[in-house]
Amino acid sequence: MQIVLLGTAAGGGSPQWNCNCSVCASVRAHAAGTVFRTQSSVAISADGHNWFLLNASPDLRGQLERFAPLHPGKATKRDSRIEGVLLTNADLDHTLGLLLMREGGRIPVHATSKVRDALVHAISIGPVLEAFCGVKWIRPPRRLSPLRRRDGTESGLLYQVVGLRGKPPRFAPGAKTFSPGHSIGFRIQDQRTGGRLLFLPDVAGIEPPLIKSMSDCDVLLFDGTFWSEDEMRKSGVGQATAAAMGHWPMAGPNGSLKLLATLPVRHKVYVHLNNTNPVLLENSAEHRAVRRAGVTIGRDGMKLKI
Amino acid sequence: MQIVLLGTAAGGGSPQWNCNCSVCASVRAHAAGTVFRTQSSVAISADGHNWFLLNASPDLRGQLERFAPLHPGKATKRDSRIEGVLLTNADLDHTLGLLLMREGGRIPVHATSKVRDALVHAISIGPVLEAFCGVKWIRPPRRLSPLRRRDGTESGLLYQVVGLRGKPPRFAPGAKTFSPGHSIGFRIQDQRTGGRLLFLPDVAGIEPPLIKSMSDCDVLLFDGTFWSEDEMRKSGVGQATAAAMGHWPMAGPNGSLKLLATLPVRHKVYVHLNNTNPVLLENSAEHRAVRRAGVTIGRDGMKLKI
Repeated sequence: MQIVLLGTAAGGGSPQWNCNCSVCASVRAHAAGTVFRTQSSVAISADGHNWFLLNASPDLRGQLERFAPLHPGKATKRDSRIEGVLLTNADLDHTLGLLLMREGGRIPVHATSKVRDALVHAISIGPVLEAFCGVKWIRPPRRLSPLRRRDGTESGLLYQVVGLRGKPPRFAPGAKTFSPGHSIGFRIQDQRTGGRLLFLPDVAGIEPPLIKSMSDCDVLLFDGTFWSEDEMRKSGVGQATAAAMGHWPMAGPNGSLKLLATLPVRHKVYVHLNNTNPVLLENSAEHRAVRRAGVTIGRDGMKLKI
Repeated sequence: MQIVLLGTAAGGGSPQWNCNCSVCASVRAHAAGTVFRTQSSVAISADGHNWFLLNASPDLRGQLERFAPLHPGKATKRDSRIEGVLLTNADLDHTLGLLLMREGGRIPVHATSKVRDALVHAISIGPVLEAFCGVKWIRPPRRLSPLRRRDGTESGLLYQVVGLRGKPPRFAPGAKTFSPGHSIGFRIQDQRTGGRLLFLPDVAGIEPPLIKSMSDCDVLLFDGTFWSEDEMRKSGVGQATAAAMGHWPMAGPNGSLKLLATLPVRHKVYVHLNNTNPVLLENSAEHRAVRRAGVTIGRDGMKLKI
């Protein structure tokens, strides 16, 4: 399986258009040890020809242009190598990219019924797309099953939902209430190589059954939104805590880094990094702590093969 | 008045993610005489500090980062120099950028009641933004009036609606029926210098009262979507005609180029160029014809001062 990190920042990207926090200011000034990051999305493929997106970010247009294997094939005037989009939730930074695919064919969107409801009723992405390409909604399976191409043939990848505690997106009813189905992860396996990817960009906190299964992969792409619980306040840009925003911070005795450090997984990578996260500065103590723990901080364009 | 073309392509940008037409293929291959273009948006300012956007494109995030005067001021942690967004219609390539401004303060959006209706009811951009920053809807005036900053003070610019024949966006009810208010232009004047901008990125066809007033400006930014009426078909990417899509093509005895060539206007610039338009290739006969007529083909980053 080929895995390409198209974008590695959380909502707003890094830097964020209106943010002067110390991290955004450093990135915008091209300080040493910083890079620009677009919003979180991943492309995966078993054969290098047919690709699936894991979330569709608002930065999708540039992401597709920068990664040549996702350029349209040349057999027809209009073409796409994207065989489907798998959504972990209905957040804008994961779903607005669907609207940028409106000029193509009907989009196969793999989403839970709750995510679909949010995209059809709370924000009218579903109905709007019907005036263009349309959407083929697909309920992702609970058990490892073939991930199919547009034409129904097998892609060479198997996939299944990883259930998580999550909330509806901020623009939907009940946005502060955690319940199952609003936010999920995906487990994906290459049928030929056996390579296993665990994609968990939105993890609200420690979940014992999840932790148990987290070693069971070769690549772990994990929620790297916040370094600390009160990062927004400390950065001077807001009051919301990491917990209130549905993200498990990295730092501290109960942080995700301590757990990730112990996992016997070949590639452990933080993705969905918020623009306030000090790990984005390569000369920060926080960045060094992550690297010392054997965990990689995702960068746009990073490629993995399993 | 400072005028900056943030983006100069029509919906999809150039190249478009799924398009292999000869123009997109050349641009994607970085052929000589081609440049990448993001989707159409313009920034204007009387003082170089406080800016207004003319349409908010899906590429807004990158456009703001690439133009330093639109970076946030450094006095506060979160800031923006954007004092409002003026919309010519509710098309996705003109409005999705509003969602990318959700992390900031309430957005002053200057739009007709029909454009507002489309953004609130046909696509829920309005309601979704209410869960974040909110929108302050402002009805743009029929007579030249002060364009005000967020705090109510005058910006140094005057503005007024230019009425046009237009249609609702494709995703809204009655999308094929032309009637007033769905698509407008703007006339903008600098109070100090007297410099006059006429912004007309969506012109469905020849309108005699409009033509009469088109000479009455120093900068004319004009609909450059299509070269010819049947360009989509000739490019092999669709059947819709320019007229059906609400755009007046450049070519031919009744085309916009013939008219623009005659206008005694200092800067005549085509914007909102569709990715199929052969004028995007600088070595094309069409490109040369436009230049020979004294008209400029807009490029991202182009600056004008009047």
